[in-house]
Amino acid sequence: MSQTLEQFQAYQTRLEQYDQAIALLYWDLQTAAPKDSIEAKLSAVGYFSTESFRLSTADEYGSLLKKLSAPEEYDQLSPAMQLTIRRNLRDFERFKRIPEAFYTEYVTEKARSEKAWEAAKEASDFSVFAPHLDKVISMTKEYVHYMEPDQDVYEFLVGLFEDGMDTETIDRIFAELKEGLLPLLAKIEAAPKPALSALQQTFDPDAQKKVQELLLSYIGFSFDCGAVAESMHPFTTTLCPGDVRVTNHYYADNPISSIFSAIHEGGHAIFEQNVDKDFWHTAAAQINMMGLHESQSRFYENILGRNPHFWTPIYEKMSALLPEFKTVPFDTFIKAINDVHPSMIRTEADEVTYGLHIILRYEIEKAIFRDNVKTDDLPALWNQKMQELLGITPANDAEGILQDMHWSDGSFGYFPSYLLGSIYDGMYLEAIQKDLGDLDTVLENGRILDITHWLKEKIHRFGSMYNSKEVIQRVCGKEISAQPLLRYFEEKYSKVYEF
Amino acid sequence: MSQTLEQFQAYQTRLEQYDQAIALLYWDLQTAAPKDSIEAKLSAVGYFSTESFRLSTADEYGSLLKKLSAPEEYDQLSPAMQLTIRRNLRDFERFKRIPEAFYTEYVTEKARSEKAWEAAKEASDFSVFAPHLDKVISMTKEYVHYMEPDQDVYEFLVGLFEDGMDTETIDRIFAELKEGLLPLLAKIEAAPKPALSALQQTFDPDAQKKVQELLLSYIGFSFDCGAVAESMHPFTTTLCPGDVRVTNHYYADNPISSIFSAIHEGGHAIFEQNVDKDFWHTAAAQINMMGLHESQSRFYENILGRNPHFWTPIYEKMSALLPEFKTVPFDTFIKAINDVHPSMIRTEADEVTYGLHIILRYEIEKAIFRDNVKTDDLPALWNQKMQELLGITPANDAEGILQDMHWSDGSFGYFPSYLLGSIYDGMYLEAIQKDLGDLDTVLENGRILDITHWLKEKIHRFGSMYNSKEVIQRVCGKEISAQPLLRYFEEKYSKVYEF
Repeated sequence: MSQTLEQFQAYQTRLEQYDQAIALLYWDLQTAAPKDSIEAKLSAVGYFSTESFRLSTADEYGSLLKKLSAPEEYDQLSPAMQLTIRRNLRDFERFKRIPEAFYTEYVTEKARSEKAWEAAKEASDFSVFAPHLDKVISMTKEYVHYMEPDQDVYEFLVGLFEDGMDTETIDRIFAELKEGLLPLLAKIEAAPKPALSALQQTFDPDAQKKVQELLLSYIGFSFDCGAVAESMHPFTTTLCPGDVRVTNHYYADNPISSIFSAIHEGGHAIFEQNVDKDFWHTAAAQINMMGLHESQSRFYENILGRNPHFWTPIYEKMSALLPEFKTVPFDTFIKAINDVHPSMIRTEADEVTYGLHIILRYEIEKAIFRDNVKTDDLPALWNQKMQELLGITPANDAEGILQDMHWSDGSFGYFPSYLLGSIYDGMYLEAIQKDLGDLDTVLENGRILDITHWLKEKIHRFGSMYNSKEVIQRVCGKEISAQPLLRYFEEKYSKVYEF
Repeated sequence: MSQTLEQFQAYQTRLEQYDQAIALLYWDLQTAAPKDSIEAKLSAVGYFSTESFRLSTADEYGSLLKKLSAPEEYDQLSPAMQLTIRRNLRDFERFKRIPEAFYTEYVTEKARSEKAWEAAKEASDFSVFAPHLDKVISMTKEYVHYMEPDQDVYEFLVGLFEDGMDTETIDRIFAELKEGLLPLLAKIEAAPKPALSALQQTFDPDAQKKVQELLLSYIGFSFDCGAVAESMHPFTTTLCPGDVRVTNHYYADNPISSIFSAIHEGGHAIFEQNVDKDFWHTAAAQINMMGLHESQSRFYENILGRNPHFWTPIYEKMSALLPEFKTVPFDTFIKAINDVHPSMIRTEADEVTYGLHIILRYEIEKAIFRDNVKTDDLPALWNQKMQELLGITPANDAEGILQDMHWSDGSFGYFPSYLLGSIYDGMYLEAIQKDLGDLDTVLENGRILDITHWLKEKIHRFGSMYNSKEVIQRVCGKEISAQPLLRYFEEKYSKVYEF
């Protein structure tokens, strides 16, 4: 190993310690921290974040990155280390171009905006949030201009959350999907609705935790390199090498929520847990493609978890842990987890209408960044698109434009990744069935770990070595398309709703 | 505020961030961390510990401490800040006198010795541990010689764990206690034993957790500035201002273990939680008197928790959470929690014989540091003293000299603090009854929070502003003595065992 590489790795190790402390403090804030300690913990997060930012923009670091980019060093590096040098040098240079005063103000404004969004949502009043949103939009434009002056802002943002993706591709596949989803939804809406009253019971939250453990183990989550906890909203986080955690939230009147959150977050976690150990301490282990990430969680949650055959081998085991399920007929449970109907809140939407929620946000984000629609006009635009895509109109801002926090913290370009994930899933499904045979049969036989193994070999172990388009090409051998997802929907729901 | 004080406080804040990260990493390692992450977490602990040590021995820090020690600065400081300057300057100077190479080797040897102790205990073979113990003893002597060359080593060690305490006082009160305990134990041994078979059931660990919550709330633990988790061995830790946590371990066949661990750790935590907020960020909030600390946990556990009247107001509530208790007669439960009999393992000993275990260790520690008894002769000495004090002889090293880890990590001088805590408790009990009236009546009436309030006002809120002798003088208005504890034992157990 060259001396420069050695110095670089020592430097990276220091950075990793700060990142680990920050991740653990956040984890603790969201899972266990008592209220009187929040200030002290946020102060520590602030301290370590500043130290980390200082280290990763220091001239010493830049100089190491540049030395390792020179062919005589670069060519000796492993592919994962080459990726690390490329990505970190790119970020180093981008961040160096941002004036420090602007950056501080941007971070502060985003925090202010988040608070304003909370208050606005609470009061269901967009006007409380509007001036902050307006400022975050203009500052986000400025932020991107500093980093990549020559690039279209929205194009940059989309690529930030899904490396290698572009709006041309998204336009094409979202259009395909919209075209297919609208008539499908109309057919589903016309069909008779199932009776789901058997689920109106109290399901012990402690028992729901045990069901979660069963499900996580069943799909291949490893407790040797993972753990679980309770938080307000479910999430997945990697604290350090060998430690990928998921959280969940348990509602006594809605066990389906924690069941599918467990499977969804489990999917995220399995991806992270399965990254090749050789990639630890490199950029390949930091997965910066949210669509690719979401494709794993949504594959487990929807393609596998909402398939009736997934449940055949374990419905009885689940009922043993949570006896209320003994009074819920298997068929009712399957109907409930595949209940499709237009609704206001994205996070509670079924897998079919979910895509329409995302298309709505994608179209509005383009309107903001490309058509410069005025912030004050956004609620009307939102409601118009809800009517157009889902046939319903929000009664107020809280269930309309204020429902998501993403725009308050400047995460424009993030939303498309959810739907990209599902579109990739349609394609994986085709490829898996080619390799492993009919999915229903594999699931029916309790061979779900064969699927996890397939995903590991084809996708997980590479971490972020390949971008999503490359992954699709390698795994499916074809261009990205929404048709497989549409075919999956069509086949599945024509059976469920008998049309 | 002077500029120097401002600089000092900024410096202290940085140190606090490292300490917070280390405390949180340890907490996580003991409560949640999956096995594959242990290496990464220990590496982070090592990094932040080194950073913290470097900061707290840096010349810049020493210079600030010295400037603030000069009368023109010092006299302006609050008493808590004066304590901080005194204590931190003392530690700064002590640590500066230790050669770095020696320090590193000492830390390493203690870690090796801990591992050797684990292996020796597993194999029940003292000879595996002996060479390491020998080295830790000689290095501990050397360590103390560096820091305080003129002081008797064991005297220094005792003071390290109980500021202001000395072996002359301990010799006196331990002798008093030994003299009183041996005949008392003989009387108890001669009395008929109660039947406790009603406790031979399975007690759901999840329900034990709920009982723990009930008990913690009942005695005054605040969940606004505290939290709980599960770990292998129960412990209490302060993560940052406003965050004091306890852990517990739940055995399905022994609910009494988790009940009394909850009350014991609750006592430690309540002390930490009740320290005056004005002392946060000063040395007064870092309680470096283990005897004083133990006096709080043991007061809750033994003086309160093992009193029958403690249970009158809540036995039914506990039985509602853990229904197996409905089949355990109240009287049987009270007999079980006050069951006294000589046994091998200190951590499982009752409150009466516990003191004899500590006296044994104290006498052996003096033999090591003052009489230079050979390490190889220690097991025989141990067994001889067990026979003399408890009338039993260990069958092997694992249940004899190898049972505790304290000596493996160099914590000589720590053991006396457990018994000091109980001796202080006897004295508090006298003082409390003067102020609040008969303890049985206070407990019977469910007025336990009056006791917590009393302890807070008299002891907790001052943190470590006063050392233990000063606390006893302030609270009880007299010299430290073992007589009150002996009187408490005599009165209580003559009732329990009817002699």
